[in-house]
Amino acid sequence: MIEYGPGLVDPGNLNSAEIIACGTEVLLGQVLNTNAWWLARQLADLGINCYHQTVVGDHPERLRQAIEVALERNDAVVITGGLGPTADDISLAQAARAAGRELTFSESAWQEIVAYFAASGRTPTENNRKQALLPLPCWLIPNHNGTAPGVAFTVDYAGKIRTLILLPGPPNENRPMFTAYVAPFLAEHSAAEFRHIYFHLVGIGEAQTENEIADLVAKSGNPSIATYVSPGEVMIRLTQRRDKSATDAEADMLAPLAAEVRRRLEKYIYEEGNRSLPEVVLAELLKNGRTLGMAESCTGGLISSELVAFPGASRVFLGSVVAYDNSAKEKFLGVAPRVLAEEGAVSETVALQMALGCRERFGSDYALAVTGIAGPEGGTETKPVGLVYIALAGGIEPEGCCEKFIFRGERQRIRSLTATNALALLYRLINCSESYLR
Amino acid sequence: MIEYGPGLVDPGNLNSAEIIACGTEVLLGQVLNTNAWWLARQLADLGINCYHQTVVGDHPERLRQAIEVALERNDAVVITGGLGPTADDISLAQAARAAGRELTFSESAWQEIVAYFAASGRTPTENNRKQALLPLPCWLIPNHNGTAPGVAFTVDYAGKIRTLILLPGPPNENRPMFTAYVAPFLAEHSAAEFRHIYFHLVGIGEAQTENEIADLVAKSGNPSIATYVSPGEVMIRLTQRRDKSATDAEADMLAPLAAEVRRRLEKYIYEEGNRSLPEVVLAELLKNGRTLGMAESCTGGLISSELVAFPGASRVFLGSVVAYDNSAKEKFLGVAPRVLAEEGAVSETVALQMALGCRERFGSDYALAVTGIAGPEGGTETKPVGLVYIALAGGIEPEGCCEKFIFRGERQRIRSLTATNALALLYRLINCSESYLR
Repeated sequence: MIEYGPGLVDPGNLNSAEIIACGTEVLLGQVLNTNAWWLARQLADLGINCYHQTVVGDHPERLRQAIEVALERNDAVVITGGLGPTADDISLAQAARAAGRELTFSESAWQEIVAYFAASGRTPTENNRKQALLPLPCWLIPNHNGTAPGVAFTVDYAGKIRTLILLPGPPNENRPMFTAYVAPFLAEHSAAEFRHIYFHLVGIGEAQTENEIADLVAKSGNPSIATYVSPGEVMIRLTQRRDKSATDAEADMLAPLAAEVRRRLEKYIYEEGNRSLPEVVLAELLKNGRTLGMAESCTGGLISSELVAFPGASRVFLGSVVAYDNSAKEKFLGVAPRVLAEEGAVSETVALQMALGCRERFGSDYALAVTGIAGPEGGTETKPVGLVYIALAGGIEPEGCCEKFIFRGERQRIRSLTATNALALLYRLINCSESYLR
Repeated sequence: MIEYGPGLVDPGNLNSAEIIACGTEVLLGQVLNTNAWWLARQLADLGINCYHQTVVGDHPERLRQAIEVALERNDAVVITGGLGPTADDISLAQAARAAGRELTFSESAWQEIVAYFAASGRTPTENNRKQALLPLPCWLIPNHNGTAPGVAFTVDYAGKIRTLILLPGPPNENRPMFTAYVAPFLAEHSAAEFRHIYFHLVGIGEAQTENEIADLVAKSGNPSIATYVSPGEVMIRLTQRRDKSATDAEADMLAPLAAEVRRRLEKYIYEEGNRSLPEVVLAELLKNGRTLGMAESCTGGLISSELVAFPGASRVFLGSVVAYDNSAKEKFLGVAPRVLAEEGAVSETVALQMALGCRERFGSDYALAVTGIAGPEGGTETKPVGLVYIALAGGIEPEGCCEKFIFRGERQRIRSLTATNALALLYRLINCSESYLR
């Protein structure tokens, strides 16, 4: 962060922070408040307690009151939205007022803005001069994806040092700014240091995960252990907190705990870190120089779309046949009409023929096929809604293998669970095959 | 809503409401606060002003304080989460405390709970008795998707009548409860009645939409007119407010305004109502008894997946070839290798060959094909990232037609804009063709 004006006061220890979103569009339900959600996660990871999130509209009085309340009860206040050159943009003025600070025109900040515009061949307007009005002394937080920089400043609020941090509203601007500038600043001033290890698991439910590590959770303190769940996946977070005031080197308690989690749950863990399952599958294929073809029925292109979301997919992913209708299963994948008629489209034989036909026709190293009943219609007593077959071909399974699932829930959930479990099976096949082939 | 206990006080006019979410998982950023977003939209549609949204954890003192602050400044307070039989579930106790009301055991509510459990062959536990402790007199809000009913009650708070409404946290429980019971209750007690018309548009940007209706927006009062934007789409909402105290029948001012909007923007409007674009396309195909095949490159199955999200897709959607690699474009769609080599995969000729090959091989009435560069890599001076060709075949275009786009933004946005514009073009082709063929 860039310092402006002399006399900046050290924020001291930051133990708590409140997140305030300023935006009428959030109050009207036009926009989901993903800023609060994302920032809350960052603060938790930094070990800063967040006890309140608040949303107010573009209304000066109500925004100022919300900031005053937040300053009263927190070491830091993070405000998103309402920065910028237009009349709607009231956050900085109200934050300054709440903090009893004047906005002063900064010639050097203005020169920065002029230079920024010049670099992209534009000239700032009179409106932009407003962005050089700052609650000096303060820090400017560079914005590499937009014109409104962020601002941070400390104030003596009723005898306590408080820190205000203002960020623009668009996530594609405020997230890189937070990561590059605000997070290191907060980490420096939080009372503790945090180290995390994340495990991502598939093929195991939340309840079973919690059972497997119940004794570790019961002992959980420092390091702490927590589980998070999303459709078809479980994440385990291990966190060790170290007080900065502790002078002697503390033992690394994270490594033994991580080893224990690994020992108990190894076969379900597909990632230690931050990558998603499609990303990990793509990376495995890339690493081994293998290609993938796909045949999807009930997921209707969802699995393929999840893979293609990542740049570089084109180097390993050849394509997918979304064989939604039976005729497409025959024409594009060579599934036998007799099998479709006798065993039905949702059957082990069809899933296997889809996978084998897919591998042959794409000429890929691996092939993944799914067929199932996503509902709400189409279920019968013997083939209920949620019945899904996932078949794989390639590697150590050139003749193909198949697994059967019965998922519960509504249509989108069944499709999403199918996608996750299909990628999980594929991940396991690749791992077995590649270590066998080596 | 079911009345419990005599002496319920009429809520009077409800002009404002605050939304409080109770949940530590929201404060930790583990869960996105979709409750506040969804409820905010409902309140706006009901004409109830929402000036604040608040999030607190499962912490009795902080929750009670938040409720007190909300009661101070609003006619109504809607609280989500923290209902239920466990020790974590503190909302009702704290709402009662904030309102100065005691919780009393209601034998008749308890009998309802016992009956509810009996109906599903279970017996309530001692814990469930807590759910019969109510701030009598109150209303119970039936929950058809879970065990915790909602509760509403009115209090005299510092001389003003305030209404508290408590709903369980899971969206699949609280949304049906709100729609079936709370919305009619609020509508009855809001000072005004509201009528809405929604227009959904594609093929036009937000700025151009606002230009076209700038004079209508400038005059906007009652009825009001507002635009909302999402990638590739614009929505216009018209709302007429009628004061309930007005005794004489007011003129319908919505119909003439809607007619004017229709007159100016007709060619961009694909829906008047609440259906999404994929839903409308499926309905058009179904209505005309036509089938669809698809060939996707840069979208990688996204368009197909958006269609398959709707039940009944199987009656019109035959499937999609996700021809991500050039070899798949040749093998599955019959694109000429020479054209791929000479003009490149992202070209008008390839898009057209994909659409024609797709229609022929699926044997479908219509075929939609997309090819493009989603980035961040793969762009050149002549073929930049964001270049997309969308081709159609069928109806009045048996030889195919093609449109070229250059979208800006990052990979996901380009893929999403491609999907929306592809479906919009298809919608227009179906409309032209079917009216021509009739």
